[in-house]
Amino acid sequence: MGTGMDERLRDIGEDALIEKLTTGLVQGPGVVVGPGDDCAVMRTADPEMFSLLKTDCLVEGVHFASDSDPERVGWKALCRSLSDIAAMAGAPEAALVTVAASADHRVATLEGWYRGLNRAAERYGVSIVGGETSSLPESIDAAFLSIMLTGKVARDRCCRRDGAGLGDRILVTGKLGGSFASGRHLDFEPRLREAAWLAEHFPPTAMMDLSDGLAADLPRLAKASGGLGWRIDFDVLPCHEHADVSGAVGDGEDYELLLTVSAEKVDELRAAWAEEFPALPLTVIGEITETIETPLEGGWDHFSRA
Amino acid sequence: MGTGMDERLRDIGEDALIEKLTTGLVQGPGVVVGPGDDCAVMRTADPEMFSLLKTDCLVEGVHFASDSDPERVGWKALCRSLSDIAAMAGAPEAALVTVAASADHRVATLEGWYRGLNRAAERYGVSIVGGETSSLPESIDAAFLSIMLTGKVARDRCCRRDGAGLGDRILVTGKLGGSFASGRHLDFEPRLREAAWLAEHFPPTAMMDLSDGLAADLPRLAKASGGLGWRIDFDVLPCHEHADVSGAVGDGEDYELLLTVSAEKVDELRAAWAEEFPALPLTVIGEITETIETPLEGGWDHFSRA
Repeated sequence: MGTGMDERLRDIGEDALIEKLTTGLVQGPGVVVGPGDDCAVMRTADPEMFSLLKTDCLVEGVHFASDSDPERVGWKALCRSLSDIAAMAGAPEAALVTVAASADHRVATLEGWYRGLNRAAERYGVSIVGGETSSLPESIDAAFLSIMLTGKVARDRCCRRDGAGLGDRILVTGKLGGSFASGRHLDFEPRLREAAWLAEHFPPTAMMDLSDGLAADLPRLAKASGGLGWRIDFDVLPCHEHADVSGAVGDGEDYELLLTVSAEKVDELRAAWAEEFPALPLTVIGEITETIETPLEGGWDHFSRA
Repeated sequence: MGTGMDERLRDIGEDALIEKLTTGLVQGPGVVVGPGDDCAVMRTADPEMFSLLKTDCLVEGVHFASDSDPERVGWKALCRSLSDIAAMAGAPEAALVTVAASADHRVATLEGWYRGLNRAAERYGVSIVGGETSSLPESIDAAFLSIMLTGKVARDRCCRRDGAGLGDRILVTGKLGGSFASGRHLDFEPRLREAAWLAEHFPPTAMMDLSDGLAADLPRLAKASGGLGWRIDFDVLPCHEHADVSGAVGDGEDYELLLTVSAEKVDELRAAWAEEFPALPLTVIGEITETIETPLEGGWDHFSRA
């Protein structure tokens, strides 16, 4: 066996793993955006509309604790995928739900998950149209909840993460950090309305949602946009009350929008935003540059932590 | 706490669990078929076409052994969902792939899964457009592979499981049983072409795929079709060489088509089938009746085994 045979996931980390797995996948003519953005984007029979596809999972012991309120876990499960639909400025349509648990798991836990899923589905206009149920081996004391979500977006409103340009301003919605400490990670609201408004009035050059923390997500946006860099002004980072700058950069699970806008539009955008969404801050936190001027530390990697 | 709070999944079984979880879910106007069939069916912008949505998962230690060839596991993962698209007489389009494993898992295993996924995707014209990667807690020595698959079907060709009528003949493709013993469960071919041919030339009154075994799946078809029964002629059941009648009824993972056809069409169908698919048996195994005349034992239930 070659040395490669013993390589473990922790040795290469999440981003390198995904690149390894998705390189060379064949994409048919219906595919507009394949692996690498918040959602996959597909052509539809309607030339004005794209469809969006997203899948996302929650693992007990990783994304939520075994004593977390099941209804809030269900809410979070659907809202994480909704946040990715928002990142493309789309509107959600239908969801499928996969649950896997050992036969010894409580029925009441799964019923709680579904109450939360259903509450989020009704709130955001999603139909839960089916799913899958599997057992886990008896030895495994954990549960698994996975969501498949479809959505749609007008072709000329679809926001990708790969269009940031040199000199564009970098903005975030809301406040960052402390999502686990505050319990906010179980109750957040996906920024569907805000993203649709942005796409209509001030189309971002790039947009994505902040799920793994600014330190993990901004490099993805900059890399996708042709290998650009960034300068972040740490003094103006909007930190959540439970977080300092390092938490705002690295905690993850913010589910806010990270976007770039051309420099000449940014003042007009901020004024219009403040009228439209007075309760939600929109902060210019930096600028897209040629190289990385302010390295970021932290952020969530599923297989190796910095 | 009420007695219900301590109820475990093993106490109620898979079908009752699914019914409990999916009852009362709100379905939007785009939904044609919600939970309960092989796929969910949605309207599209094209009034002639429906879209199909399916999700399905494989768990190490449940659906495959930890020493199974990863490439065959990947093939199986996609082909299981393809079998559900076939059951509606549809054609597949795009897939998303979720993998979850502990950081200690081998990179080579996941690469093998993707080789198998990609082989099946190329064979059946599927674009793998993205997915999700998650860690599992260190204590969990298992891996999880979940597929989200979309497809399409002409509105007037879509086959559901709820249309069987009294006196309809019950048919199956291929041979049943012994899927695990023979290793066939890792190498089967989804019946996409056969199902599309049936829908075009001899539209079944009801169709589904056999994944949990005739003993689990036929009752689902009969129940969905207005609470009908069946009579199976066990002498003619097409048993796989590794299986007896009890295996053919209860082993599961056949991934063959189970269908019902009106009695007056069945001879013509069999003759045409033999010309079109000479290598694949199509067998009349019984008849839809008012009550259950031949109870079936066995079949796979994820949370309690009979």
